[in-house]
Amino acid sequence: MIRRASARPARFVTFEGIDGSGKSTQARRLAEALRADGAHVVLTREPGGSPGAEEIRTLLLTGDPARWSAETEILLFTAARRDHMEKTIRPALAAGRTVISDRFADSTRVYQGATRGDLRAVVDRLHETMIGQEPDLTFVIDMDPADALSRGLARRSGEDRFEEFGLGFQETLRHGFLALARAHADRCVVIDGGRPEAEVAAEVAAIARGRRVANDG
Amino acid sequence: MIRRASARPARFVTFEGIDGSGKSTQARRLAEALRADGAHVVLTREPGGSPGAEEIRTLLLTGDPARWSAETEILLFTAARRDHMEKTIRPALAAGRTVISDRFADSTRVYQGATRGDLRAVVDRLHETMIGQEPDLTFVIDMDPADALSRGLARRSGEDRFEEFGLGFQETLRHGFLALARAHADRCVVIDGGRPEAEVAAEVAAIARGRRVANDG
Ligand SMILES: Nc1ncnc2c1ncn2[C@@H]1O[C@H](COP(=O)(O)OP(=O)(O)OP(=O)(O)O)[C@@H](O)[C@H]1O
Ligand SMILES: Nc1ncnc2c1ncn2[C@@H]1O[C@H](COP(=O)(O)OP(=O)(O)OP(=O)(O)O)[C@@H](O)[C@H]1O
Ligand SMILES: [Mg+2]
Ligand SMILES: [Mg+2]
Repeated sequence: MIRRASARPARFVTFEGIDGSGKSTQARRLAEALRADGAHVVLTREPGGSPGAEEIRTLLLTGDPARWSAETEILLFTAARRDHMEKTIRPALAAGRTVISDRFADSTRVYQGATRGDLRAVVDRLHETMIGQEPDLTFVIDMDPADALSRGLARRSGEDRFEEFGLGFQETLRHGFLALARAHADRCVVIDGGRPEAEVAAEVAAIARGRRVANDG
Repeated sequence: MIRRASARPARFVTFEGIDGSGKSTQARRLAEALRADGAHVVLTREPGGSPGAEEIRTLLLTGDPARWSAETEILLFTAARRDHMEKTIRPALAAGRTVISDRFADSTRVYQGATRGDLRAVVDRLHETMIGQEPDLTFVIDMDPADALSRGLARRSGEDRFEEFGLGFQETLRHGFLALARAHADRCVVIDGGRPEAEVAAEVAAIARGRRVANDG
């Protein structure tokens, strides 16, 4: 794994990976670890992360998911992300805080790549035009989808539409995330998420500290 | 005024113009006139015009309008327009119907041009990427904003945020619509909206019939 100890601090950190891989758990644990170091951390998530973006999240994740085409869905995700950037992420970074986001643009890239590969160029064009920012550091939590799904069975919610496609779809996503991590090796670190929670958390915190994520405290 | 009697029938017709200029009134009257000719007409509006787009309309036009930046607003308008195109406009055109829309993409162009001129290129790029269709015929209803606003005073609603900016803003919009009509002279016809309703309606219907709008009946 490539470390860039001399690079500027990684202040914008994201967690990505298939459903149930432990993104939310690890994002929360990293926030706790960095706060224990004295850092000011904003823990956020997508879709959502700001009041307006949460309103758009409700449109996306409740009601009949089939009522939006892939194209409309991409526009709504991008609208939510733009609001999240403006209202939560950029102000926090400007104030010198560390931002940890549970999912970000990579999720859109990988999910759209898996469902409508022909739209990847559209996703990229929208990102360039309307968002234009990448994380400094992205943890791609990798694990066997069957194990992740079996974890997930314990926590059914009204928002589990992305888990409806089954194991084959999760396999496609897994390979999508791994390919993305290779294509963006400068900022992505693949983490083995199939291990006990504390073990994963320790590795994640060590890497984040190695990138001086916490040095803004 | 240029007529193209030999062109293909103008099946997708839009009404544009400043607030209170009579778009909704004239769109309804043209639908009635063409139906009387035997045409199958779908009368629709923006933002909205399909169930999903109406949900997005609610996000845009209710609550505190200042909660969306211009960029997020453009994305939400484009998402609503995409849904409107997919669910209402294209199926109707494919079935041989005439579609009359009370506002369409020109409204986004002119309102954004008036408020955030620097975003006109972004608006155009989003339109090309995600919508890619222009009306066959656009009626730009032109009139003195002071007269239009005095009409409007009678009908306050919860959705009148675009009327909040006052007369100077409406003047800017008026010139924006006129400039747009010149730039798209192939499809735009400027109509003097300061006349009695029936007189305007008669001219609009005559032009639409001249473009063989109703010949699909
Ligand atoms: N390392 C781990 N070992 C076992 N269980 C775990 C581990 N990490 C998280 N879990 C449990 O697995 C479930 C999914 O974890 P979590 O919600 O963090 O995943 P996620 O990637 O955020 O899922 P989603 O994609 O649905 O948001 C939770 O019940 C969580 O407690
Ligand atoms: N030619 C006309 N002369 C006088 N009043 C009119 C005329 N046309 C419409 N009106 C009245 O003016 C008001 C605004 O008309 P209308 O709602 O059709 O405008 P609009 O362009 O759709 O407005 P908005 O931009 O707010 O949607 C209405 O009360 C309508 O009855
Ligand atoms: Mg989660
Ligand atoms: Mg109207």
